[in-house]
Amino acid sequence: MSIPSKPARDALQRRLGYQFSDPSLLERALTHRSAHQQHNERLEFLGDALIGMAVAASFYHRFPDADEGVLSRLRASVVSGPALAGLARDFDISGCLILGESERKSGGRNRDSILADVLEALAGAVMLDSTLQEATRVVSDWFASAVESASPDNLVDAKTRLQEWCQARGEALPHYRVLEVTGSDHAQIFRVSCQLSGPRGVTEAAGSSRRRAEQSAAAAMLVELLGDRHE
Amino acid sequence: MSIPSKPARDALQRRLGYQFSDPSLLERALTHRSAHQQHNERLEFLGDALIGMAVAASFYHRFPDADEGVLSRLRASVVSGPALAGLARDFDISGCLILGESERKSGGRNRDSILADVLEALAGAVMLDSTLQEATRVVSDWFASAVESASPDNLVDAKTRLQEWCQARGEALPHYRVLEVTGSDHAQIFRVSCQLSGPRGVTEAAGSSRRRAEQSAAAAMLVELLGDRHE
Repeated sequence: MSIPSKPARDALQRRLGYQFSDPSLLERALTHRSAHQQHNERLEFLGDALIGMAVAASFYHRFPDADEGVLSRLRASVVSGPALAGLARDFDISGCLILGESERKSGGRNRDSILADVLEALAGAVMLDSTLQEATRVVSDWFASAVESASPDNLVDAKTRLQEWCQARGEALPHYRVLEVTGSDHAQIFRVSCQLSGPRGVTEAAGSSRRRAEQSAAAAMLVELLGDRHE
Repeated sequence: MSIPSKPARDALQRRLGYQFSDPSLLERALTHRSAHQQHNERLEFLGDALIGMAVAASFYHRFPDADEGVLSRLRASVVSGPALAGLARDFDISGCLILGESERKSGGRNRDSILADVLEALAGAVMLDSTLQEATRVVSDWFASAVESASPDNLVDAKTRLQEWCQARGEALPHYRVLEVTGSDHAQIFRVSCQLSGPRGVTEAAGSSRRRAEQSAAAAMLVELLGDRHE
């Protein structure tokens, strides 16, 4: 394993907009499990939570009229694995990664999952190195441009995406079914299922309209098919 | 819809350990969608993220040797729907809920999902009413005793729970399969699948040992079967 040079680390900290008081935290955040026992996975756990909170707050304030479902989807679009990896590339983190030999040889330096994890670990490291207020500001800045350019209008809805997913694989289209309607006339709750053909299973969701419930069930199915980072 | 009396609201704020500067935020947090258009779901989105971050930080510091997977499961055990509802009951929130008539009549006041959502919304309301530092302190206090009593040793592992789930339903036991092993001898990555019988689908996960990967795949299957709050 080779540790990035001091000039490289200094340049990275400038790009991240944060100067570590404790340089060992930066080093830890950059260390993949293939390189060393003191790797970045615990920091990643912490940073994932910080990013989730910071981005949630950003979208909450930016879209005062968006409902919870829209806010969740906006956030997911910005903290998805590919989005995090893209941000890590913007920060040119790749050259500073500390990888084991096998990962280095197999192109780990440019792998989305490794880059996304390192960005999360860096957020966790900033959180430990700083105050919560300051760490949230730093992380919010990282995502400011993504939050700025995200819009509820550009969200491809979950039913459409699920349909496209099926079509791309030549599979039968999803089947939605209303399971139950409860509540009074003005506050009905629809519970629906979304079923794919074959062994892919069923998801269920509830919502204040049939359309919303179907969207939620489709979103749940996408999570199941693609993992929760790929909304 | 009936708003809780001032004495009731004051008593609730004492139990929560937080006095709102803006009482309308408290009211909003207590308002279910069945009662009013100005309901608590956006606050719930925000509070869920704050709770996730605060509890992540608590466990990170409490268990310096726990790996990311254990930390995730510890957190999930404390912020599960039933756990949040239990906490809402400890705070005796139920009597202060603002519900529509149909929800009131159908026992919404004691429904786990409604109680859990209100607790999250209260966290979001504190976040807006206060500084991030203070809000995190308040929320961390809510969960302090749960975090204190949680332990990696008490976590029933995911494979066991999944097996119990299948047995309770008379279904065939889960089938695990190694799909791929990559990496060098000292940093192998195992990718495995977990398959249930019938239409329940397949999950996949990777880990540094076959056992860890199987646990992760089982955990993913539990999320699929029970929803992500029921870890």
